[in-house]
Amino acid sequence: MAWRDRVRTVVEAPRTQHVITVVILINAATLGLETSPALMSRHGSLLRLVDHVALYVFVAELLAKVYVYRMKFLRDPWNIFDSVIIGTSLLPHSGELSVLRALRIMRALRLISVVPSLRRVVSALLAAVPGMASIAVLLSLVLYVAAVISTKLFAATTPHYFGDLGTSLFTLFQVMTGEAWSDVAREVMAVHPAAWIFFVIFILICTFVVLNLFIAVVVRAMEDDHAREADEARQAEQHTIEGVMAELKALRAELRDSRREQEGAALSR
Amino acid sequence: MAWRDRVRTVVEAPRTQHVITVVILINAATLGLETSPALMSRHGSLLRLVDHVALYVFVAELLAKVYVYRMKFLRDPWNIFDSVIIGTSLLPHSGELSVLRALRIMRALRLISVVPSLRRVVSALLAAVPGMASIAVLLSLVLYVAAVISTKLFAATTPHYFGDLGTSLFTLFQVMTGEAWSDVAREVMAVHPAAWIFFVIFILICTFVVLNLFIAVVVRAMEDDHAREADEARQAEQHTIEGVMAELKALRAELRDSRREQEGAALSR
Amino acid sequence: MAWRDRVRTVVEAPRTQHVITVVILINAATLGLETSPALMSRHGSLLRLVDHVALYVFVAELLAKVYVYRMKFLRDPWNIFDSVIIGTSLLPHSGELSVLRALRIMRALRLISVVPSLRRVVSALLAAVPGMASIAVLLSLVLYVAAVISTKLFAATTPHYFGDLGTSLFTLFQVMTGEAWSDVAREVMAVHPAAWIFFVIFILICTFVVLNLFIAVVVRAMEDDHAREADEARQAEQHTIEGVMAELKALRAELRDSRREQEGAALSR
Amino acid sequence: MAWRDRVRTVVEAPRTQHVITVVILINAATLGLETSPALMSRHGSLLRLVDHVALYVFVAELLAKVYVYRMKFLRDPWNIFDSVIIGTSLLPHSGELSVLRALRIMRALRLISVVPSLRRVVSALLAAVPGMASIAVLLSLVLYVAAVISTKLFAATTPHYFGDLGTSLFTLFQVMTGEAWSDVAREVMAVHPAAWIFFVIFILICTFVVLNLFIAVVVRAMEDDHAREADEARQAEQHTIEGVMAELKALRAELRDSRREQEGAALSR
Repeated sequence: MAWRDRVRTVVEAPRTQHVITVVILINAATLGLETSPALMSRHGSLLRLVDHVALYVFVAELLAKVYVYRMKFLRDPWNIFDSVIIGTSLLPHSGELSVLRALRIMRALRLISVVPSLRRVVSALLAAVPGMASIAVLLSLVLYVAAVISTKLFAATTPHYFGDLGTSLFTLFQVMTGEAWSDVAREVMAVHPAAWIFFVIFILICTFVVLNLFIAVVVRAMEDDHAREADEARQAEQHTIEGVMAELKALRAELRDSRREQEGAALSR
Repeated sequence: MAWRDRVRTVVEAPRTQHVITVVILINAATLGLETSPALMSRHGSLLRLVDHVALYVFVAELLAKVYVYRMKFLRDPWNIFDSVIIGTSLLPHSGELSVLRALRIMRALRLISVVPSLRRVVSALLAAVPGMASIAVLLSLVLYVAAVISTKLFAATTPHYFGDLGTSLFTLFQVMTGEAWSDVAREVMAVHPAAWIFFVIFILICTFVVLNLFIAVVVRAMEDDHAREADEARQAEQHTIEGVMAELKALRAELRDSRREQEGAALSR
Repeated sequence: MAWRDRVRTVVEAPRTQHVITVVILINAATLGLETSPALMSRHGSLLRLVDHVALYVFVAELLAKVYVYRMKFLRDPWNIFDSVIIGTSLLPHSGELSVLRALRIMRALRLISVVPSLRRVVSALLAAVPGMASIAVLLSLVLYVAAVISTKLFAATTPHYFGDLGTSLFTLFQVMTGEAWSDVAREVMAVHPAAWIFFVIFILICTFVVLNLFIAVVVRAMEDDHAREADEARQAEQHTIEGVMAELKALRAELRDSRREQEGAALSR
Repeated sequence: MAWRDRVRTVVEAPRTQHVITVVILINAATLGLETSPALMSRHGSLLRLVDHVALYVFVAELLAKVYVYRMKFLRDPWNIFDSVIIGTSLLPHSGELSVLRALRIMRALRLISVVPSLRRVVSALLAAVPGMASIAVLLSLVLYVAAVISTKLFAATTPHYFGDLGTSLFTLFQVMTGEAWSDVAREVMAVHPAAWIFFVIFILICTFVVLNLFIAVVVRAMEDDHAREADEARQAEQHTIEGVMAELKALRAELRDSRREQEGAALSR
C-alpha cells in the first residue's frame, strides 16, 4: 500500500507531467523528421531509438496509472483516449496494417490530454456535439437521399462523379462544402440540362441547414452564458430585497413595541 | 365508432411508430442497394418486393390515419408532407415521368415526420424562414437585375456563361456561392477589361446581404431567447416587489389601528 | 393650391403605389424578355413600347412628387435614389454610353423604394455600414500594401496575376474571397518557393479581419437590441420602485399626522 | 529642459499628426506608382526623392519622440511598431535582402498608428487573439499530425502535394481553407481509394474546430459587452434600493423620535 502511494506521488507530480510533455514534443518532432528520406538514411537508427524510448515511457506511465488508480482509471475518459493511442502503437504494423505505422504520430495528440488548456478546449468542443446531433442526422439524411437520387439519374452520364452510391456521397459532400460544385454541375448539365434544379435545391438546403446548425450552437453557448449571469443578477437582487424586508420587519416590530408600551402606559394610568 | 377508436389506439401506439420507423429505414436501405446494378441483377426481385411491401405499409398507415382523424388529418402539416411523398410514389413512373422512380427515395424523408427530435429541428428551421423572406426577395432581385445586365453585356463574348437569361442566372448563382468566380471573371475580362467592376460590386453586395441575412437570423433567435428570459426575470421581480408592498400595507394598516386606538383612548379619557 | 392638394391625394394613395409596383414588375419582365434575340425579332416593337410607357409613368410620378413636395422632395433619400435611376434611363445611350442600355434594368431596383418591407431591410443594411467603415478601411489598406509588395516581387514571373498594381489588386481580392488561391500561389511558388509565406500570412490576416468585421456587426446588432430591452426593464423597475416610494411617503406622512395629533392632544390636555 | 518641452509641444500637436498622416498617404501613393515601369522611366527620380524625404520625416519624428519620452517611448507598443517599420526601411536592401525593397510599402501601415479609429480597431482585433490561442494551438497540432500522416501515406504517389512535410503542411492548409480540396483528394484517391476517409475526417475536424473558434470569439465579445451592461444595471438598481433604504431609515428614526417624545410626555405628566 505504501509502495502504491509512493507511485501515486510520482505519477501525480507536476514534474512528471512536464517530463511527459517534453517526451511527447520530442517524439512528435522525431516522427516528423522520419518523413524525410534523407534524414532517415543518415540518422534513421537514432530516430527509431528515440521513438522506441518514447513509447516505453508512455507505456510505463499508463501502467503506473493503472496500478495506482485501478478501476478508477477507466472513469477518466482521457485515460481511455491515451490507452487507445498507445495501444494502436503496440499493434504489429506490417503487411495489411502498415497504415498503423503512419498513425504513430497520433501520439502527438496526447498533448491534448497532458496540457490542461488544450484539454479544456477539447472538452468544450465535445460538449457542443450533442446539441448538433439532430441537425447532423438531418444533414446525413439529406445527403443520403440526394446521393441515391443522383446515382439513379446521373450514374450513366458521369460515372466518375455519380458512378455508385459511395462515389455520389463523396461528390455531394464536396458539393456541400461548396468546392468545385460548378465543375460537377456543368458537366452533368451538358447531358441533363434540367440538372441545375437538383444542384441549386441541394446547395440551398445544405447551406440553410448548416447555417442553422451554426446558429443553434451560438445561441446555445449564449443561453448557457446568460442563464449563469441571470442567476447571479437574481441572487444579488434577492440579497437587496432581503435587506429591505428586514428593515420593514424591524420597523413593524418597533411600531408594535411602541403600541404595546402605550397600551401599558394607558393601563398603568 | 368503437371500431374507429380501436384503430386510433393502434395508430397512436408507440409500437406502431417504431414499426413504421423500421420500415422506413429498411426501405431507405433497399432503395440505396437498388443503385447497384450488380445487386439488382442478383437480388432485384427481392429488393423490389421489399419496396412494394414498404409502400403498402405506408399507404395503409395513411389510410388508417385519414379514417381515424377525418378532417383533422389535414390540419397537421406533417400528414400533408407524408401524403405528398407517398402520393408521388403511387404515380405511374414510366416514360416522361421516369424521374419519379429516382424520387422514391424521398420516402426516407418520412423519417423526419416520424422521429420527434428531427421533427422539432425541421420545425425550428422552417420557423426561421419568414424572418428571412424580405432579404431573400432582395437577393433574388439583385440576382435578376445582375443577370439581365450581364446577359446584355457579355452574351456575345461568353455564351456558355451568359448566353441567355437562364444561363446567366445559374452563373451568377455560382458566383454568389463564391465558386470558381475568378474563372468566369477572368474569361470575361479578357474581352471586356472593365468587367471586374461588375464582378467585384456583385460579390460585395451579395456577401454583404448574405452576411446581414445571417446576422438577422442570429439576432432574431437571440431576441426570442431574451424576451422569454426577461419575462421570467420581470415575473420574479414582480413577485418580490409584491412582497415588499404587502409588508408596507400591513405596516400602514397597523399604524392606522394604533392611531385609532389612541384616539379611542383619548376619547374615553 | 387646391390643385396641388388634389395631386398630393393621388400621389399618396395606396392604389397609386400598387399601380407603380405593377408597372415596375411588368417593366422588369419586359427588360428580361429583351435579352432573348428570338423574342426581340418577333415582339421587339411591343417590348420597346411597354418599356417607353413604363418610363413615362415613372417620370410622371417623379414630376408629380416634385410638384407636391417641392424642396421636401430632396429630404427623402429614396426620392433621390429613384431620381438617379430614372435619370440614367433618360440619358442618350448610344456610342460611348451604350452600357447604359444594359443598366435600364436597374429600374427594377425601384421595387425597393416602393415595397415597404424591402425598404426597411435595405435601411437596416445601410445602418450597418458606418460600424464597418473602420474595418473596411483597414482591409483596403492591407489589400493595397499586399498588392504593392506582390507587384514588386512577382510581376516579372506571373504577369497575368501580378503584372501591374490593378491586376494585383484584383488577384488579391480573389485570394481574399478564398477563390482558387492555391492556383495562384502554386504558380508563383514554382518560381519563388518562399512565396507561401506571403500567401499564408495574407490569408490569415484577411480571414482574421473579416471574421472580426463580422463579429463587430453581430455584437453591435445585439447591443442595440439589448440597450432597448434594458431601457424597457429599467422603466418597468422605475415604475415599481416609484410605487414603493409613494407607499413609503404616504406612511411617513400618516406617521407625522399621528404625531401632530398626539402633540395637539397633549397640548389640549 | 525647456527645449525638450518645446519639442514635446510640437510632437504632440494635432497639426503634426495631420502632417505625418499626409506624408504617409503621399509616400504610400508614390510607392504604388513605383510599381509602374512606364512611370518609373519618366518620373523615377522624382518618386525616389519623395520616398527619401518621407523616410527622413519619419526618422525625424521617431527621434523627436525618443528625445521627448526617453524610456517611456518603449512603453507604447505603437512606438515599437513604428520603429520596426522604419528600421527595416533603413537596412541595406541589396543582394540577399532585396526583398526588403518591396517591403518599404509596409510604411503605409503606419497609418494605423496615426489614425485613432484604425488604432482602436487593431487594438480590438489584437485583444481577441489571446482568447483564440488555445484553439489555434489545437488547430496547429491537428495540422501537424495530419501532415505527418499524409506525407507517410501519399508522398510516393502525389509528391507535388505531399512530397515532404512542408509541402504537406501547405497542401493541408489549402484543404483547410476549402480551396480546391477535391482536386487534391481525387488525385490521391485515384491511387488510394480509401483516402476519402482521411480527407473527410480532416475537413470535418477542421470545420468543427474553426466553427468553435469563431463561436468562442463571438461569445467572449458578448460576455464583455454583457458584463459592462449588467454592471450598469446593478449600479442603477443599487441606487434606487439605496433610496428606498434611506426612506425606510428616516421613517424608523421618526418613529423612534415619536416614541421618545411620548415617553417624555408620559414622564413629565
